[in-house]
Amino acid sequence: MKTILLKNRPEGKPQTSDFEFVERDKPSPKDGEVLLETKYVSVDPYMRGRMRDEKSYIEPFKLDEPIQSAIVAEVVESKHEKFQKGDFLTGMLQWKEFQTSNGKGLRKVSKDKVSLSAYLGVLGMTGLTAYFGLTRIGELKEGETLLVSGAAGAVGSVVGQIGKIKGCKVIGIAGTDEKVEMLKNEFGFDDAINYDKTDDMAAAIKKAAPDGIDVYFDNVGSYTLDAAMENINRFGRVINCGAISLYNETEQPTGPRLETKIVKKSLKMQGFIVRNFEEDFEEGIEQLSSWLKSGKLKHEETIVEGFDEIPQAFLDLFDGKNKGKMVVKV
Amino acid sequence: MKTILLKNRPEGKPQTSDFEFVERDKPSPKDGEVLLETKYVSVDPYMRGRMRDEKSYIEPFKLDEPIQSAIVAEVVESKHEKFQKGDFLTGMLQWKEFQTSNGKGLRKVSKDKVSLSAYLGVLGMTGLTAYFGLTRIGELKEGETLLVSGAAGAVGSVVGQIGKIKGCKVIGIAGTDEKVEMLKNEFGFDDAINYDKTDDMAAAIKKAAPDGIDVYFDNVGSYTLDAAMENINRFGRVINCGAISLYNETEQPTGPRLETKIVKKSLKMQGFIVRNFEEDFEEGIEQLSSWLKSGKLKHEETIVEGFDEIPQAFLDLFDGKNKGKMVVKV
Repeated sequence: MKTILLKNRPEGKPQTSDFEFVERDKPSPKDGEVLLETKYVSVDPYMRGRMRDEKSYIEPFKLDEPIQSAIVAEVVESKHEKFQKGDFLTGMLQWKEFQTSNGKGLRKVSKDKVSLSAYLGVLGMTGLTAYFGLTRIGELKEGETLLVSGAAGAVGSVVGQIGKIKGCKVIGIAGTDEKVEMLKNEFGFDDAINYDKTDDMAAAIKKAAPDGIDVYFDNVGSYTLDAAMENINRFGRVINCGAISLYNETEQPTGPRLETKIVKKSLKMQGFIVRNFEEDFEEGIEQLSSWLKSGKLKHEETIVEGFDEIPQAFLDLFDGKNKGKMVVKV
Repeated sequence: MKTILLKNRPEGKPQTSDFEFVERDKPSPKDGEVLLETKYVSVDPYMRGRMRDEKSYIEPFKLDEPIQSAIVAEVVESKHEKFQKGDFLTGMLQWKEFQTSNGKGLRKVSKDKVSLSAYLGVLGMTGLTAYFGLTRIGELKEGETLLVSGAAGAVGSVVGQIGKIKGCKVIGIAGTDEKVEMLKNEFGFDDAINYDKTDDMAAAIKKAAPDGIDVYFDNVGSYTLDAAMENINRFGRVINCGAISLYNETEQPTGPRLETKIVKKSLKMQGFIVRNFEEDFEEGIEQLSSWLKSGKLKHEETIVEGFDEIPQAFLDLFDGKNKGKMVVKV
């Protein structure tokens, strides 16, 4: 049975050599446990942070131990009273083909209504991140202008669509012409900018939003954030959801100081992780499911096949090779 | 009658030559107007921003026209039904020995309970800035650790005292040993740091607050903000009230990018101006008055005498020559 360990803490951009595949015996469940077979594995940018040996909101991965991410798994044997063979469960699990669990932190999902992979995306952490970020942190109101970076990614594509559902003007930033077209044609964004073909991002945003930006949902940080700040309106809110452009930096990055602007324009910049809203997850899943069923919300996935492809799929996130949620089907 | 005009838009640090004294005729009030004699003039760091020809939350000062600030004036002649000779009024007025007004934006103040200059400080914009910043933006809670820069200034000294009233651990940053002693001995701060004698501000904050900072009330920006961010706890709030250390910069200042930390620690940075809370001013004045009367809140003033000294008093703010509110008594 294959297991993927963290072999090295990456310096800068992670590489396949930072991961190690090992063979382990298939475990047997004890009383009160289930044996799980991994079906879908989520790979996410935030995991780069857990590869550092740094105190953070979540414990770092340990060297020579299995990596962990959100996973959908099937119960193949059960000695747990709440779960039966054939159930599908989701939660934080390890990169192993099989594993046992006492069920703590796992919840049952149904494959009837939506595809199982949706529970790693639009009905999982990324969809909830979009939902709570926009509503709780961004306090997005009808008629406002919303800018989102990483717009073709798992979080960004949901952010933009919720913006449209809420009656806002939505502008996305993404890295290929194909993604830009997808945002406008499939997801209903009002406009989208290809950052790879844009020399002056602040000017491009100004062109797309001549009346300025009220809410900026930031997945990337750095120059894109600076450009958004050039265009932000009074009482604007920046939702600091991620800073993928900085995650592989080895030195402390510098940039323009923002505090004078924050004061002058009464701006708010606020970071969060989705777990801060754990108590309200049911509300979020219900709302997102209802939009999904009614067709108001579409979800895009990039599904890579094969357990062996998990590390590469993770690495591909940093080159923007995914459209929507990146998931590995085992 | 003397009037002070803005002669030049300062480049970098303002100088006395940026101001011009001219003689004007004493005006006469029309029906519905009062004639006011200037008694106390407020000088405040935010006014530096109005000297730039830049769009902001408040109109820039015009060249060759009188400068405006918060003033307490006496009604010396009244053709206004609501005001009588001998009343004292406060509001935004011009740097003139005498001026007429239709009373719009002015409110009556009483010299019975507190000194008139208090209405330019602890019961005026600076006290209200401290009150609303801490309560509305900072959401300060009992038992938290509060750091405030510009702590010996008009806003900072009230911030720290409210922090103590709310049952918090309070640490101040100021620029002289005398101010540091004042913060600890007169205002009851738990600790205070002299930035002028501190090479490593982050280490000094860590020493004063080994368990980290929950709320940072920032009046100065720049390196001090960076050092505070090194010590901020998860769910920490930065109240961006001012950035006096940057107001005289002529180039866009740069510094460490904060977005990764903002995400990781679920931080909030939020700027404001006191006018955002205009509807709640009565609540604030009432609360501050009650603390003032009960002796829980002390107010420190640096009072300079003479109309001619107004520009110099303003310039002295940038060298930290004031303790508490800087006011000119005419």
